[in-house]
Amino acid sequence: MPKIVDHAARREEIAEALWRVVRRDGIRAASVRTIAAEAGWSAGAVRYYFPDQDGLLSFAMDLVSRRVTERVAAIQPKGSATTIALRYLEEALPLDAERRAEFDVWMAFMAQAQAESGAGGLRAHVDTVHDGLRQLCESLLNALAEDGALRDDLDVRREAERLHALIDGLALHAAIQPERTSPARVRQLLRQHLETLIARQ
Amino acid sequence: MPKIVDHAARREEIAEALWRVVRRDGIRAASVRTIAAEAGWSAGAVRYYFPDQDGLLSFAMDLVSRRVTERVAAIQPKGSATTIALRYLEEALPLDAERRAEFDVWMAFMAQAQAESGAGGLRAHVDTVHDGLRQLCESLLNALAEDGALRDDLDVRREAERLHALIDGLALHAAIQPERTSPARVRQLLRQHLETLIARQ
Repeated sequence: MPKIVDHAARREEIAEALWRVVRRDGIRAASVRTIAAEAGWSAGAVRYYFPDQDGLLSFAMDLVSRRVTERVAAIQPKGSATTIALRYLEEALPLDAERRAEFDVWMAFMAQAQAESGAGGLRAHVDTVHDGLRQLCESLLNALAEDGALRDDLDVRREAERLHALIDGLALHAAIQPERTSPARVRQLLRQHLETLIARQ
Repeated sequence: MPKIVDHAARREEIAEALWRVVRRDGIRAASVRTIAAEAGWSAGAVRYYFPDQDGLLSFAMDLVSRRVTERVAAIQPKGSATTIALRYLEEALPLDAERRAEFDVWMAFMAQAQAESGAGGLRAHVDTVHDGLRQLCESLLNALAEDGALRDDLDVRREAERLHALIDGLALHAAIQPERTSPARVRQLLRQHLETLIARQ
């Protein structure tokens, strides 16, 4: 029997080792060498899956996207339209240790894509993640509008842009100054922002 | 006569060389070696001013802070309270090539500080820049309130937090997707946001 290599399972193993390194030591510490050591593999075997540092960072970013997408898909919409919207938006915010690690990966990823000239592989990835959050904002506001909950003088696309910018700004502040921009404060500011968009009954 | 080294002038020369490298090739390309080549100095002479990559990044960040502070200090307040507020806030936004380069430095700086564990030198710097923009937001909203232009049901500190998050989010979007989040769009979104805070006459 030829040896069957289960690539999907191997990728999953690497993903788990990568995530343990990121959680424990930060994204900057994640290298082919440290991940191989964490997984108990040879560096060569890990390098088969990501040949260089950019490949590794893309892999980490894909992992973050997948985690967020899975959490968003698992949400059971319950409560008022505002509560449901908040519930979704929170999945993109660094409000616990897991999501802070995810946000640090996203920040390292953006900074690296930004520092590169031209439209490399990282840039396309950044656009995909960025557009995903924009679309989530627009969908949530459209859902509010369909429920008749949104003020009717608002332009949904413009409000989606403002909400998206606010979320990324709050995420940044929660990540860089968690003492001041605490999870409770982020939730409060976001709820108050959504309330300014809601029609008075 | 002993040789007099004018440290301030030398720092200024390095700052200018550093800035040319950042503008042309991005912050990631800025190293002691590339800056020395740009300035026509030896690497050793440059290393006297910043011994390592973190020192260099701190130097670049100080330069950005100084540039923003100088531009803000040079503003002649004219027009309505909203126009004046916008005029100030625009100095922190990557709306032209110079300010995009400044923002890329800030992003690289934050990502690096974030990826480091513990409270190193970079972190303290990030806090200073972050707090500076928060205070600018609060001062501008206080000025609007003193003019009687702000809605009186608003909490100025809370609105300063929301405005600060919105600005950092818009800056991020303008930097990573300048085709979509154009300078005109950023100005429009920011003006519309400020208008929601203004008392109806």
